[in-house]
Amino acid sequence: MKLNKNYSKLEENYLFTEIALRTDNFMKANPNAPLIKLGIGDVTLPLPSIAADAIIKAFEELKHAETFRGYGPEIGYEFARNAVAEYYKQYGVTLDNKEVTVGDGIGSDISNITDIFEKGANTVLVPDPVYPLYKATSLMDNQKIIYIDCNAGNNFLPSPPDFPSDMIYLCSPNNPTGATFNFEQLQKWVDYANSVGAVILYDCAYERFIEEDDKPHSIFQIPGAKTCAIEFGSLSKTAGFTCVRAGYTIVPFDLKADGMSLNRMWQQRQTTKYNGAPYPQQRGVEAALSPEGIAQADKNISVYKKNAVLITDVLDEKKIFYSGGKNSPYIWFHCPNGMGSWQFFDFLLNEVNVVGTPGIGFGANGENYFRLTTFNTYENTKEAMRRIKEIL
Amino acid sequence: MKLNKNYSKLEENYLFTEIALRTDNFMKANPNAPLIKLGIGDVTLPLPSIAADAIIKAFEELKHAETFRGYGPEIGYEFARNAVAEYYKQYGVTLDNKEVTVGDGIGSDISNITDIFEKGANTVLVPDPVYPLYKATSLMDNQKIIYIDCNAGNNFLPSPPDFPSDMIYLCSPNNPTGATFNFEQLQKWVDYANSVGAVILYDCAYERFIEEDDKPHSIFQIPGAKTCAIEFGSLSKTAGFTCVRAGYTIVPFDLKADGMSLNRMWQQRQTTKYNGAPYPQQRGVEAALSPEGIAQADKNISVYKKNAVLITDVLDEKKIFYSGGKNSPYIWFHCPNGMGSWQFFDFLLNEVNVVGTPGIGFGANGENYFRLTTFNTYENTKEAMRRIKEIL
Repeated sequence: MKLNKNYSKLEENYLFTEIALRTDNFMKANPNAPLIKLGIGDVTLPLPSIAADAIIKAFEELKHAETFRGYGPEIGYEFARNAVAEYYKQYGVTLDNKEVTVGDGIGSDISNITDIFEKGANTVLVPDPVYPLYKATSLMDNQKIIYIDCNAGNNFLPSPPDFPSDMIYLCSPNNPTGATFNFEQLQKWVDYANSVGAVILYDCAYERFIEEDDKPHSIFQIPGAKTCAIEFGSLSKTAGFTCVRAGYTIVPFDLKADGMSLNRMWQQRQTTKYNGAPYPQQRGVEAALSPEGIAQADKNISVYKKNAVLITDVLDEKKIFYSGGKNSPYIWFHCPNGMGSWQFFDFLLNEVNVVGTPGIGFGANGENYFRLTTFNTYENTKEAMRRIKEIL
Repeated sequence: MKLNKNYSKLEENYLFTEIALRTDNFMKANPNAPLIKLGIGDVTLPLPSIAADAIIKAFEELKHAETFRGYGPEIGYEFARNAVAEYYKQYGVTLDNKEVTVGDGIGSDISNITDIFEKGANTVLVPDPVYPLYKATSLMDNQKIIYIDCNAGNNFLPSPPDFPSDMIYLCSPNNPTGATFNFEQLQKWVDYANSVGAVILYDCAYERFIEEDDKPHSIFQIPGAKTCAIEFGSLSKTAGFTCVRAGYTIVPFDLKADGMSLNRMWQQRQTTKYNGAPYPQQRGVEAALSPEGIAQADKNISVYKKNAVLITDVLDEKKIFYSGGKNSPYIWFHCPNGMGSWQFFDFLLNEVNVVGTPGIGFGANGENYFRLTTFNTYENTKEAMRRIKEIL
C-alpha cells in the first residue's frame, strides 16, 4: 500500500496538545493550584433548553416502532435545511434549501469540502495567524500554501494580494484574533476571488457575536459572493453544540468552475461518503435557529460578552494593544514586556495559574501575541483578570 | 480553483436514487398500490431502550451547567472505546482502547480512512458485486480498481488473486450477497495481504447476524490480521443506530507501511478533521455494547432472522439459487426465467408491488441477480413473499 506522505508534514505537537501537556505537568507539580482556563474555545453554558428538549423528544420517537426513523437524507432533513435558510433571511440573504447542507459540525465540513478540490494543484491563501485546521488540511492535500500577513499594521484584517490564487480561507469574526471584516473590506476579497477564479472558504462560526452594524454576518451579504464563496456555520459557540455536533454549509448554485457545479460536487461528496447528521440533532438545529432558540442563544452570548468586557477593561487600563472582544469571543493582545508567546504562557501559568493560548501557535505573525477566550464563567473570568491585572 | 475531476467518473444515477425514482413514478401512477419495500438495508425496529435511555440521560446532563460537557476527545471517549474493546473479548480478540476510534458511523469512517492513502497510486481490489461505496471512494481518489469476480461458481466468496495489490475491500457477511467467509477462506486473504503488503479494509457491519461457528465475526480472529487489516464496525443493523449515527473503527498498532503507523495516521486524520462523535451517542454505544444492550439487539436480530426464513423458504421451494439469509440480513438470488436485474425489479414492482434491489446495481456480476432484505416487519415480509411465491 502507498500512504499519504503529506501526513509527515503535520507538526508533531498540535497546539492544544502542547498546551494540555504543559498544563498537566504544572498541575502534577502543583496539584492544589487554583487553575483557570481561558484557553480553548470551548463553551461552558448548557444547551438552550428549547434545543435540548427538541433533541430529547426526537430520541423518544426513536424508542417506538411507530415513530422510529432509519437513514435520513445525507445532506440533511428538509426541515433543518429550511431552518437555516430561514435564519439567513434576517441578514437579507436568500437561500434555496438545496444550497444548504446540515452536517455534524463545522470542523467536519471545512475538512471534508477539500475532497472536491484537486490535490497538489491549488494555491491556497492562508492568513497568518490562523486557526490551525486550514493549514493542516492544505498540507495533507499537498496544496501550495501562501501565508497572508495579519498584523497590527492591518489590524489583523488583511487585504487581497496582487497575485492570483485558487482557494482562500477567511474567518470573520476571526479565530484567533477576533478581528472582523467590515462590508467594504470583505467586498474587496469577493471582487478579488471573482477576478482570479478563486473560491473563498468562509468560516462564520462566530457571526452571532457581531454587534456592530458595519460588519457582515454572512459573506452572502456581499454582492458577488454567490459566484465565489462557500460559507460554514456553527451552532457550537451560540447554542453550545460543541459535544452535540451539528453545523451547516452553504454552497451556492452559482458557484462553478471548469463547467462543474461545486454545489453538485459537495452533494456528491456527502451522499457518497456521509450518512447524514443524526435525526435528533437536526431537530436541535431546527429548534436552536427558531426565534425562541436564537433568543436563548443570544442570552448565553451576552454572558460571554460580559466576560469580554472584564478582559478588555484590564487591557485598556494597561494600554495593551488588542483586537477582538467586541464582535468576537476572542481577545488577542500583545504580550507585555517584550515577552514571547510561550514565555508569556508559562509566565501566566506559573505566576497566576491562568491558561491561555500562545499566539505563535497560530502562525509566525502570532509571536508576541496571546489569545484569551470569554467562554469560562463570569466568576472565573473575573478572578483570572484580577490576578492578571496584578502582574501586568 | 482546480476541482477534483475524478468526481466526473461517478455514475449519474446512484443505485438507490434510481430505485427511488422508479418507485416514485410507479406510485404516482398507482397511488393506492399496497407497496412493500424489501430494498434498502434500513432497519425498522426501534432503538433498544437501554441505548435510547442512556442517550437521553446524557442530553439531560447537557441541559445543566454542572454536568455540561464541551468538546470531547476526537477519537472517542475512553468509556466508549473501552466498551468496544470489551465487546471484542467474546470473540477472543484483545484490543488496546487506543486501537479503537468511535465515530459517527461506518460510512464516514470507511470513506474518511481513504485520506491516509496516496491518491492515484494504489491498486484497489473491489469485489464484484459490491456495496457501491468502496468503488465510489476509489474512483474519487483516482485509484486503480481491479474487480474480483464473485459468482455462483465461488459461492460469491472470492479467493485472493495471483497478482499483487495495495488495498482490498472485504465485507463479510457480505452486502449485497449475504455470503460469509469461513476461517479458512479469510485466512487466505490475510496471508495474501501480508505477503504483498496490502491493507484489507474489512467491513463487518453484519457480524452480529452470524450464527455458524465456522465463520469469524472479526478479521482479528485470524492469525496475522493485525499486520494487514483495518476493521469497521456498525451499530446500525444491530442496535438500530441508522439515524443515531455511531460506529467504530479498529486500526491495530502493528499495521505499518513505509515506516509509518496507520493507527497514528488515522488518529492524525481524526484529531485534525473531526471533532468527535456526539457525547450522548457515545453513551449509547456504551449501553448498546453492554451485555444487556447486546441481548436487546440480538432480540431485534432474531426478528429479522424470522423474516429471512420467510424469504428463503420460498426460494427453497421454488429451487432458486441464493446466498445469504443464514448469517446475514440479505438474501441474494438468481432472477427466475432468465430475467435481467432491472427487468425483475420492474416485474416485482408492477406485478406484486414489492420493491427489492437489482443485483446489477452492485456490479456486472450482479446481472440476473436480485437482493431482498429482512429489515421490514414480519407481517410485511410475509405478505410480500406470499405475493412473490404466486408469480414465481
